[in-house]
Amino acid sequence: MLVIGELLNGMYKQVAKAIQAKDKKTIQKLAKEQLEAGAQILDLNCGPLSKDPLGDMLWLIETVEEVAEVSLSLDSTKSNVIAEGLARLKNKGIVNSTSADEEKLETLIPLAKKHNASLIGLTLDKKGVPQDKDRRLELAVFIVEKCQAKGFPLEDLYLDPVILPLNVAQNQAKEVLGVLTEFKVISSPSPKTILGLSNLSQGTHRRSLLNRTFLAMAIYSGLDAAILDPLDKELMDTLIAAEFILNRHIYCPDFLEAYRKK
Amino acid sequence: MLVIGELLNGMYKQVAKAIQAKDKKTIQKLAKEQLEAGAQILDLNCGPLSKDPLGDMLWLIETVEEVAEVSLSLDSTKSNVIAEGLARLKNKGIVNSTSADEEKLETLIPLAKKHNASLIGLTLDKKGVPQDKDRRLELAVFIVEKCQAKGFPLEDLYLDPVILPLNVAQNQAKEVLGVLTEFKVISSPSPKTILGLSNLSQGTHRRSLLNRTFLAMAIYSGLDAAILDPLDKELMDTLIAAEFILNRHIYCPDFLEAYRKK
Repeated sequence: MLVIGELLNGMYKQVAKAIQAKDKKTIQKLAKEQLEAGAQILDLNCGPLSKDPLGDMLWLIETVEEVAEVSLSLDSTKSNVIAEGLARLKNKGIVNSTSADEEKLETLIPLAKKHNASLIGLTLDKKGVPQDKDRRLELAVFIVEKCQAKGFPLEDLYLDPVILPLNVAQNQAKEVLGVLTEFKVISSPSPKTILGLSNLSQGTHRRSLLNRTFLAMAIYSGLDAAILDPLDKELMDTLIAAEFILNRHIYCPDFLEAYRKK
Repeated sequence: MLVIGELLNGMYKQVAKAIQAKDKKTIQKLAKEQLEAGAQILDLNCGPLSKDPLGDMLWLIETVEEVAEVSLSLDSTKSNVIAEGLARLKNKGIVNSTSADEEKLETLIPLAKKHNASLIGLTLDKKGVPQDKDRRLELAVFIVEKCQAKGFPLEDLYLDPVILPLNVAQNQAKEVLGVLTEFKVISSPSPKTILGLSNLSQGTHRRSLLNRTFLAMAIYSGLDAAILDPLDKELMDTLIAAEFILNRHIYCPDFLEAYRKK
C-alpha cells in the first residue's frame, strides 16, 4: 500500500499560517513526522486562502525537498501550478488530480506524461460526484481510454472513486468499495486505485474509527494507495495489520515493528 | 450482525474453575457482562478438562438461564451433550457444531430440526481444514444438500469456513474472506455465514488489532454472525462502525451509543 501523507495542506490552520509566514521549520517538521510515521509520498496543497498559489507551491516543494528525498504529490486545481511544480520536482511527482472532464484530461495527461509523473483521476465531472457504482465505472473507463489514446502508462494512473462523507451520503461507501474491485479489470495492466480516505469521516464523530474500519474493507477490495493522516497511529496499525492478513508480507510476532522498520 | 459471546468456555482457566466448583456467581457475571456488551447469544463450552461434559453442560444452561432470557449455543463434540442440552433450553438454541462428515450430519441435522435449533456447519471433514476456497465451497455445498434432503430450514444454517491462525496458515485468511461471499449463492434462501473469529489470532501478538481488522473485511464480505469476545470494546466498536459504513443503520453523530442502546 502506498501511503500519501495529507497533512501539508493549507486547509489546516497551522499549515496555512506557516505558508503565509514562510515558516520553513513548521513545514519541514510536519514533512519529517509524516515520513517517519510511514508516509512514502507527501501531498502538498496551498489551501483555499493562498493569495499566490504558484509561489506558495514552489516554496512548499523547495522547503520539503530541503529536508527529504521524497516524491511529492501536487494538489491543486490550477494547471499552471501543476505545470511549474512538476518542472521543479527532484523526484517522480504525482498530479493530484484530474477530473473526468475532457478539457482537464486534455491538459493534465500530457503534462503528467511529459514529466514522467503519476496521475490521480477522480471519477467525477462537471455534474458532480456519481451516486452509484456504474457511473463511477463509466467515468473511470473514459479516463483510462483518454490515457491510452495519449500513450500515458496505465501503471502511473491512480483511479479515485471519490468517497463522500458518511453523514451526507451514507449509501456511497458501499458503492465505492464495490467499484474499487471493478476498476482493476478495466484494462491490462490494471490502473491503480486510490482514495482520499479522510473525506469519509468529514463532520462525523469518531473519525479515526470510521476511517480505519473503512480502510480495512477498502484494502481488501483492492485499494493500492491512500491519501491519509499517517500520524493517526491506530489507522496505520490497521493498514499494516490488513496487509499481513492478506498475506502481503510474511507474518512475524512483531509484525508492526518489522513493517515500520523496513 | 449476530454476536455470539465466546467467554463461557472451559478453555479459560477462570471458567473451568467455576464449572468445577459449581460457582454460579462467576458464570452468571460473565453471562451478564457479555450481554451488556452487545452479545445476543452466548456460547457454552465445558472445556477439554471437564470430567462430566453432560452434567457440566446442563449445569451451565441452568445457571445462565437463571439470570438471562437468552439463546444459547451448545458447543460440544458429543452428540448426547447436544441432544440433552437442546431438550432443556428455554429459548431457540444453536448446535455448535457439525463438520461436513456424513455421520455427523446424519445425527446433528435431525437433532437440530427436532428442537427447532440453528446449526453451525464447519467446512472441514476428517481430512482436516481445507487449504483453499474451492474445497471449502465443496464441503459447504455438501452440508447444504444434506440439510435440504432432510428438510432443515436453510435460514437456520450457519456455514463456517473455518479461519486458521495467522501465524500458522497466513494464506488462509484471504481464502476465507473470498468464500464467505460465495457461500451466499449456494442456495435460495442463502445459508448464513459465521466465523469463530478469535482463532485468527491464536498465538499472535496484537490479537485485538488482527481480530478487528479481519472482522471489518469479513463483514464487508457477507459475514452474518461471529463468535467473539464482546468485552473487547475496540472489536465491538469496529463491528458497529462497519455496519454503519455499509448503511445497515441510519447514521447519527452518536452512532456507537445509539447502536448499543437499541
